[in-house]
Amino acid sequence: IKAEDQSAVLAVAGDLHYADLALAYQDLDEEQRIMLLKSIGPNLAADMIVDLPDSLIEEALDAYRPAELKVLFRDLSDDDRVDILQAVGDEARLRFLGLLGPEDEELTRGLLRYEPETAGGRMTTGFGRLLASMTVKQAIDDLRHKQENTETLSRMYVVDAKGHLIGRVRLRDLAFNTWDTPIRDIMAEVPPEQRVLATADQEEAAQILMKYDLVVLPVVDEFDHMLGIITHDDAMDILQEESTEDIEKLAGIAGEQVEDTYLQTSVMTHFKRRFIWLLGLGMLAIASGYVMLRFEDTLTQVFLLSLYLPMVVAAGGNTGGQASTMVIRAMSLGELDPGTAREVLWKELRLGSLLGVLLGASIAAVTILILPAFRPELPEGVSFARFGCTVALALTAQVITSTVVGALLPIGARAIRLDPAAVAAPAITTLVDVSGMVIYFTIAQALLHL
Amino acid sequence: IKAEDQSAVLAVAGDLHYADLALAYQDLDEEQRIMLLKSIGPNLAADMIVDLPDSLIEEALDAYRPAELKVLFRDLSDDDRVDILQAVGDEARLRFLGLLGPEDEELTRGLLRYEPETAGGRMTTGFGRLLASMTVKQAIDDLRHKQENTETLSRMYVVDAKGHLIGRVRLRDLAFNTWDTPIRDIMAEVPPEQRVLATADQEEAAQILMKYDLVVLPVVDEFDHMLGIITHDDAMDILQEESTEDIEKLAGIAGEQVEDTYLQTSVMTHFKRRFIWLLGLGMLAIASGYVMLRFEDTLTQVFLLSLYLPMVVAAGGNTGGQASTMVIRAMSLGELDPGTAREVLWKELRLGSLLGVLLGASIAAVTILILPAFRPELPEGVSFARFGCTVALALTAQVITSTVVGALLPIGARAIRLDPAAVAAPAITTLVDVSGMVIYFTIAQALLHL
Repeated sequence: IKAEDQSAVLAVAGDLHYADLALAYQDLDEEQRIMLLKSIGPNLAADMIVDLPDSLIEEALDAYRPAELKVLFRDLSDDDRVDILQAVGDEARLRFLGLLGPEDEELTRGLLRYEPETAGGRMTTGFGRLLASMTVKQAIDDLRHKQENTETLSRMYVVDAKGHLIGRVRLRDLAFNTWDTPIRDIMAEVPPEQRVLATADQEEAAQILMKYDLVVLPVVDEFDHMLGIITHDDAMDILQEESTEDIEKLAGIAGEQVEDTYLQTSVMTHFKRRFIWLLGLGMLAIASGYVMLRFEDTLTQVFLLSLYLPMVVAAGGNTGGQASTMVIRAMSLGELDPGTAREVLWKELRLGSLLGVLLGASIAAVTILILPAFRPELPEGVSFARFGCTVALALTAQVITSTVVGALLPIGARAIRLDPAAVAAPAITTLVDVSGMVIYFTIAQALLHL
Repeated sequence: IKAEDQSAVLAVAGDLHYADLALAYQDLDEEQRIMLLKSIGPNLAADMIVDLPDSLIEEALDAYRPAELKVLFRDLSDDDRVDILQAVGDEARLRFLGLLGPEDEELTRGLLRYEPETAGGRMTTGFGRLLASMTVKQAIDDLRHKQENTETLSRMYVVDAKGHLIGRVRLRDLAFNTWDTPIRDIMAEVPPEQRVLATADQEEAAQILMKYDLVVLPVVDEFDHMLGIITHDDAMDILQEESTEDIEKLAGIAGEQVEDTYLQTSVMTHFKRRFIWLLGLGMLAIASGYVMLRFEDTLTQVFLLSLYLPMVVAAGGNTGGQASTMVIRAMSLGELDPGTAREVLWKELRLGSLLGVLLGASIAAVTILILPAFRPELPEGVSFARFGCTVALALTAQVITSTVVGALLPIGARAIRLDPAAVAAPAITTLVDVSGMVIYFTIAQALLHL
């Protein structure tokens, strides 16, 4: 794609949005990447590098000399700088920190203290900080001189002398009021529920921003000192990451969601995230096999039971998976308080019964009406009606049990402070496979007098 | 919670954010709801009603007299008005449309023509429309007089005489330039990739907004006429809805995601979304049973095979589910172009082989080392080593097949224009259950000479 001509590359790259440039960059081979970085220089590269997956960042930075890196880091907003430093190795982080000016270094070290997945780890300090006692003119002068970043104009917060957050001001308030109006008179209150603690989970910050339709959410410490802000685009990234994490956990894929795309992730990384669950579930599944082995007599006496065995077992996995997925999603959307456990249980119990009875009735009807046409062998004294009812009853019992287990497990996991989504559908499936085997053979033994 | 005293209710409700008010509303019984609506009046209720789940909206509106509804609808932004009208029944929609002023009615009818899940169906027309030939002063006067809504100040677009989108202007550009500067000189270009067609899927709009970190995305028709805007908070709602839909589809839950929360949704609605998949999968699972029935001789000759049967079968479901989930999520994040199918296949083939060989080796080791201690019966001439290798080979074959099937099915579904997420994990599980049975018994027959 890229010719050898540096000035042509520069012209094209300068016209592209950094998000598109980052995508194009990932399609290049290593040699082309380095050439591209050299051609566009640190100024243009800064925003693009922020948009790269974590695994490519250190390589990209290594293409530049220290003097160029100084320029690059100076051009970045503080939250982007922190994101980049969190993505590189420890050795590189120290080296890059040494390239920052003293002020930036202190600021960056401060932000690096917060865990990456907290509100503090995500925030930027790039907002306009005003005092209530300023006039509109003083505020505008202050913003113009102290902060070069024009972004701060759309994010202005008012603090008292000790740095406590006391209000916010919009640009239009400054623009449409006379110059001697005190900030105190035009600032709006920031309700307590529309701020977030720096130590709070990043997902909580995104949920607040979304609930109140905010563009910017202020981040404070436990004494309500204004520390920074989280913006709507961070919130969107957070929500997307968290959804992906939930989806992966539900499929029994372990570990943190990596920022690399599916295709960029190496086979080994994919392997590691999938293997551990598979091995554990495999060992657990031998318990089902053991149950089957124990019921050898029952199965060999009426081998026709095997026709329905996979169905009864699988129905449990499917209903359990549905119930757990619904409950887990409702939890991560914040719909289920711990106090609602009983309500959830009652709902799923009714739902499971309805599903179980109707699925049982369907299978009984199919068995009694269609099965005789195939003239299968049944033991003496067992009618098709009795056989059909046995299968139906087992199916009903399995569906009800599994639905309730599927709903209860994530609730139980949360109660003991485990991640509900980690009690994934595969785990529930394997569990109810075992109970399904027991239910099926026990009911068959009893009703068919084996 | 709510006392009988109307003025107290009003005072509390006036202090709450409408998002919180909407949550509180949903916890009330019907009588309390009506009382709350009457107390706060249509002005305060408008924003709250927008935030309610669809099923509660018509009931809430019916609490007001036509004259009050006129006020309520007049206070709403046009996209909220459309959302509400899309949520109520046909008869109510016509009745409410009749309450709008002629201008609003025409505008609303126009917006109602777009499908609810398109960019057009989600957009608002509440933006500032400027002409390139205006001066800054004319622009400010125009915005002040024509549009009462101050929201439009942060969303100003420049159109030509025929209404084509040609640029955008920020409030700070108006505030910090002299009054006689022409808009043409201060407007910024809107690149073609940073706008969306009104007929495009809402998810596309949200993805663009997210990719370019925009607060507002302009919506145009095929001739590039500026029609409206989609804001960051709409985009967040869209992303959340689509993630929930994907998660539910992956668990085999049918139908559109409803706006009601888990607890608000009735047992019957939950039932309908789950039953159809369960019935289909149940019928399909009988195919597995049929395979088992056909291999009666093999199983009864070496009944020890049943110890590993559930494990081999389930391993297929788990690996297939993992592969399909990863591929489906990568697709909905826009990471996989149709051209990458071969790359995905190659990756999953290597991954499946790695997983299959390692899981097979683990199970062979366990079988050969531990199983003899339990002194199970094996047919004459079959050593534990041969038995272990048989199981291991079957497991490896099953895992490789399932991984590839799991990855290919969503890609195939997309190729024939089906929703990849609808080829959910349960469907893949049921499918590879059947192939797993065949693989297991065929390999056992061949290697154990049955």
